[in-house]
Amino acid sequence: MEVPLKAVVLVSGGLDSATVLAIARKQGFAIHAISFDYGQRHRFELLAAARVCKSMGVSDHVVCRVDTNIFRGSALTNDIPVPHNRNETEMSHGIPVTYVPARNTIFLSIALGLAESVGVNDLFIGVNAVDYSGYPDCRPEFIAAFETMANLATRAGVEGHHLTVHTPLISLTKADIIRRGLTLGVDYGLTHSCYDPDASGVSCGECDSCQLRLRGFREANAVDPIRYRSGQSGQSGQSGHERKQ
Amino acid sequence: MEVPLKAVVLVSGGLDSATVLAIARKQGFAIHAISFDYGQRHRFELLAAARVCKSMGVSDHVVCRVDTNIFRGSALTNDIPVPHNRNETEMSHGIPVTYVPARNTIFLSIALGLAESVGVNDLFIGVNAVDYSGYPDCRPEFIAAFETMANLATRAGVEGHHLTVHTPLISLTKADIIRRGLTLGVDYGLTHSCYDPDASGVSCGECDSCQLRLRGFREANAVDPIRYRSGQSGQSGQSGHERKQ
Repeated sequence: MEVPLKAVVLVSGGLDSATVLAIARKQGFAIHAISFDYGQRHRFELLAAARVCKSMGVSDHVVCRVDTNIFRGSALTNDIPVPHNRNETEMSHGIPVTYVPARNTIFLSIALGLAESVGVNDLFIGVNAVDYSGYPDCRPEFIAAFETMANLATRAGVEGHHLTVHTPLISLTKADIIRRGLTLGVDYGLTHSCYDPDASGVSCGECDSCQLRLRGFREANAVDPIRYRSGQSGQSGQSGHERKQ
Repeated sequence: MEVPLKAVVLVSGGLDSATVLAIARKQGFAIHAISFDYGQRHRFELLAAARVCKSMGVSDHVVCRVDTNIFRGSALTNDIPVPHNRNETEMSHGIPVTYVPARNTIFLSIALGLAESVGVNDLFIGVNAVDYSGYPDCRPEFIAAFETMANLATRAGVEGHHLTVHTPLISLTKADIIRRGLTLGVDYGLTHSCYDPDASGVSCGECDSCQLRLRGFREANAVDPIRYRSGQSGQSGQSGHERKQ
């Protein structure tokens, strides 16, 4: 019996990483999933990560705590309001307040340590350079530099094997990602994207992450199965800018 | 009044990082110190880190928790015996069981996030490629690759300033480091290096870290002010290999 290749997959509980998990499985990898408890303001994405893993039969799922809330200035880990209803021009310029400094670097580094500890040479992360909200650590040049560094940081560099950071979504639009995930059977109803959910975990529909998600479903002519506040709907065809407050 | 440049300094509580802290201060940097609670088997190095910072007047010191004990296979974070009394040939070949996968990558990544969040472009870390115990993430090529990656991962890459990873110890022997620290007034009695201290924090004198430290003090013709178990002594001139069990 052939032993399947193993991969470490970063699973945030969001739409992108759920799709990446499905892609890695489709490619035949046995999965070590890792999520991060990084001091985020809410726990809904960790609950979503667990649901997503379970739905894809991934039993090897660890949650690593890392206190990035020691950093100041991010709306995702500090008491700073998440912006709502920014328009596309606002979203496409500059680094937003939801940026957590070096987050992908930190998450990939910890995933790298996990990979090394379980003898895995393949890492998967759902970064995306198209609908990417302006984060510097979602760009292909960052990923390439991380991979180079990772191969020097670990046994790989000493023992002569090669670590690869797979970013299957990097050049896809959000609509492409959703289409890809739907063909792979991803249940997006299990995922959580909102930066600013209410106390029950219902998404706001207005933060950058919700807006990118809703636009992605519209452009993919698909229905977003999650609930939104204030009667907003993820139904295909409705414009985010026409939604009522 | 001129505002001092600020630096983030990784402070483990060990001899090397105490020296780096003194060097960064001597260079005129105001210090943001960071230490890591990473699931290590004992807390003595965190206590030492706090003592070292206090002794150098560094009040801005954060401890970041990161659960690298999710990784298997390291004697520093798992229930695996720390090797004692390895000889120089054993120490100079291969990656030892005390290696924590990707540890410096993870620590530098978190320090990078802190640096970015407080607007700092200079990071200091006490890695050393001479008496380095065989860890791949202590090599100059790793540090260079990390710096390249860091400049792409953060606002630096977007906003056009440059992050520098300073490694003032990288080409020094342990004896050189100790001599340098002594001229800068470092109190090595506050530091902790042992991988396998007893319940009171007294160092074993036999693990790789103790052996490198003791040899460093001998070669620097200096006295190691910390206590060792079993009547071992850090007095100058005594050979580690002659010490009694």
